[in-house]
Amino acid sequence: MSKIPYRTYLPEDKLPKAWYNVRADMPEQHDPYLNPATLKPVTMDDLLPIFCEELCRQEVNTTDRFIEIPDEVLSFYRVYRPSPLIRAYNLEKELKTPAKIYYKFEGNNTSGSHKLNSAAAQVYYAKKQGVTNLTTETGAGQWGTALAMAASYFKIPLTVYMVKVSAQQKPYRKAIMETYGAKVVPSPSDTTESGRAILAKDPGSTGSLGCAISEAIEVAVNTPNSRYVLGSVLDQVLLHQAIIGSEAKAAMDMLGEYPDIIIGCAGGGSNFGGIMSEYMGDKLKGRGNPYFIAVEPASCPSMTRGKYAYDFCDTGKTTPLAKMYTLGCEFIPSSIHAGGLRYHGMSPTVSKLYHDGFVDEARAVRQSDVFKAAALFSKIETILPAPESAHAICAAIDEAVKCRESGESKTILFNLTGTGYFDMAAYMNYNEGKLEDYIPTDEELQKGFDSLPKID
Amino acid sequence: MSKIPYRTYLPEDKLPKAWYNVRADMPEQHDPYLNPATLKPVTMDDLLPIFCEELCRQEVNTTDRFIEIPDEVLSFYRVYRPSPLIRAYNLEKELKTPAKIYYKFEGNNTSGSHKLNSAAAQVYYAKKQGVTNLTTETGAGQWGTALAMAASYFKIPLTVYMVKVSAQQKPYRKAIMETYGAKVVPSPSDTTESGRAILAKDPGSTGSLGCAISEAIEVAVNTPNSRYVLGSVLDQVLLHQAIIGSEAKAAMDMLGEYPDIIIGCAGGGSNFGGIMSEYMGDKLKGRGNPYFIAVEPASCPSMTRGKYAYDFCDTGKTTPLAKMYTLGCEFIPSSIHAGGLRYHGMSPTVSKLYHDGFVDEARAVRQSDVFKAAALFSKIETILPAPESAHAICAAIDEAVKCRESGESKTILFNLTGTGYFDMAAYMNYNEGKLEDYIPTDEELQKGFDSLPKID
Repeated sequence: MSKIPYRTYLPEDKLPKAWYNVRADMPEQHDPYLNPATLKPVTMDDLLPIFCEELCRQEVNTTDRFIEIPDEVLSFYRVYRPSPLIRAYNLEKELKTPAKIYYKFEGNNTSGSHKLNSAAAQVYYAKKQGVTNLTTETGAGQWGTALAMAASYFKIPLTVYMVKVSAQQKPYRKAIMETYGAKVVPSPSDTTESGRAILAKDPGSTGSLGCAISEAIEVAVNTPNSRYVLGSVLDQVLLHQAIIGSEAKAAMDMLGEYPDIIIGCAGGGSNFGGIMSEYMGDKLKGRGNPYFIAVEPASCPSMTRGKYAYDFCDTGKTTPLAKMYTLGCEFIPSSIHAGGLRYHGMSPTVSKLYHDGFVDEARAVRQSDVFKAAALFSKIETILPAPESAHAICAAIDEAVKCRESGESKTILFNLTGTGYFDMAAYMNYNEGKLEDYIPTDEELQKGFDSLPKID
Repeated sequence: MSKIPYRTYLPEDKLPKAWYNVRADMPEQHDPYLNPATLKPVTMDDLLPIFCEELCRQEVNTTDRFIEIPDEVLSFYRVYRPSPLIRAYNLEKELKTPAKIYYKFEGNNTSGSHKLNSAAAQVYYAKKQGVTNLTTETGAGQWGTALAMAASYFKIPLTVYMVKVSAQQKPYRKAIMETYGAKVVPSPSDTTESGRAILAKDPGSTGSLGCAISEAIEVAVNTPNSRYVLGSVLDQVLLHQAIIGSEAKAAMDMLGEYPDIIIGCAGGGSNFGGIMSEYMGDKLKGRGNPYFIAVEPASCPSMTRGKYAYDFCDTGKTTPLAKMYTLGCEFIPSSIHAGGLRYHGMSPTVSKLYHDGFVDEARAVRQSDVFKAAALFSKIETILPAPESAHAICAAIDEAVKCRESGESKTILFNLTGTGYFDMAAYMNYNEGKLEDYIPTDEELQKGFDSLPKID
């Protein structure tokens, strides 16, 4: 038995009491969001009807390095946090690698993913401001579930617009949100103008994330005392998710370990932004030099094959524009099963850090390799990972195998964002050899790029 | 923030390295198992063709107080253990109770329940003995999943006979087992004589646990180097599950706490036997006097309304007979959703301790109250419990409310055995007000008692 335990949990008195705001240490900020009507930088007045006041302030805060976590949010965090930092001894043995592999496991809560970290914060600020109704959208359902949990805890009504095809294919996901008291509306619906417009054109529409976002925002803006909440991409989300990296760093410090390589999967950037946090701060301040790898699906390669440009955050073109790596908001990714990574863009902050060379590498991996890694990992480390999370596992295994070949004993840290209990249809396809890889052609990508707004 | 943390994890060097064998401290043992053919006490020779040698020894060991956990099993445990001991501050606040509520949460592993604790041990001993094939049955699927995880880890082939209607209703449960490499055969099947016999009589049979057990045992006994494994009832299972109580006690000791009341749900007795373990040892030795409550469904009330008598452990009447609280092996419980508690009997050791007054109380609760407790708990403590586990929550809440009324600040400890992610159909019924209570009439119970074997 080694001195370093399999699982390390920070003692409660060492848990982070503030969120680390990476932007306070960035030499340059990402370009501002633009108002889609005026194409001028958004103002607080543009944001206030949509988001809570405190969250608007967090969204534009580039100066405070640490932002205190309210006691009420800490009380919520402490029911499911700290998440464990796990030394993957069994995986190391299986791979015969001299590398030391660590992972932070964020799936040990009922939402099954890290999304709860930001849901708790966003709902709390809404409650504090006296908001009496929240709306959001959900695709695969992780975000909707996390938000339903937080909303029921803080006792604030929530309406979730759930992409209709997801609601049909995943009735149990819907049922969990309802068990937590959320109202789940399959989108497009007849409850909003945008929903009715889509249904008028196509009564059989099975919906899209873009449409669900439009419905959720419409209701938030038109209902008194109502606000909209979003689970990724935004800087406020990255701020809350920084707790992942802060906890991981505190635990690694306790063990006397420092990662050579840090790996996260990347869809909208919320978990990659979370695991990097204080380690990225070290790099920006010249105090450490971990090698950061953001892993995305080869079928939706916004960082590896996208453009760094202004684009809408939603397919419906209703949100502010952000400067980010993007495939164009009209790019339609193939229906790979890692639903959480099917996003055309990328967090503006992660994009900027990648563009400026602080995120060292973006890596696109194929779905077949991802599930192969997931199946191996589940058998050896016992945790059945979400397909999204398995992208990070895939890259971590590749790095560990490289170490076996080179004889180097590098320290690898990756973020295991969630569990795959609601992704069994994808695993069934994999088990039956029916999973297909899909890599978009240059022509297909070009169509997406053609949808980019023309902005100098 | 109180001094006692929300979550307590034992440090790795304080994790139990031995299983506590409660029988070594019992003043009287339960009556011996009987060979169903001869009605004489079973011998090692009767057991050896069915179970591994070491497990047979554990099954009859009434003298060793502690049995060392093999290093290989410890390595497996340490990927998902220790499980947290959680102080339910938020629930206490919600209930406005002066009681202190603690729960041991055993659901934080991919199998979603405590079943993994015994699966790991049973598979390890099989591997060590050179067994090359394992068989088992599963109903709801928790045990099958746990065993599939352990079997893939220790690299030993496993065939799971899954009650056909479960396999049809829960394709994802089946898919998880397959992802872990198990072969899942819907039962009754044409792969065994007992299966073929049932299909000949009733080609449309949707199966039963009794039939699945018969198929699994038949294959184990007739395949060279093959063994059968079982997830509850047996003393070997109680032994392995004792790790729950040992960890809980070590953590409570660390906090300077001692429970006044200890609560577990009770189906076959594996988790109740687990959480009681060393605390029951205290009671047997006169070193402590916690009040033990075993909670069962009102629809399947083996302890509260059953007889203490010899009975078969399976509906197929193929297994040895055990002296236990039973409703009669032909009693057919209503299809309540807590599948794991739909068992006609009860662990012989738990039965004996109840009969001799060391388990203070058995309590039957109605399904509607159970789901009401589950819904409240999930919102306040964030964890969505399995319906089985919610029986314990229901009793814990009742005890905490009594404390509010009496002003007593009792310390309550209960075992939260698992998560309800695969029980959403039941939650959907509850959410829609469609859940029904069912309490068997005396006449219905009498029919079950009529099936009891006549033994003096």
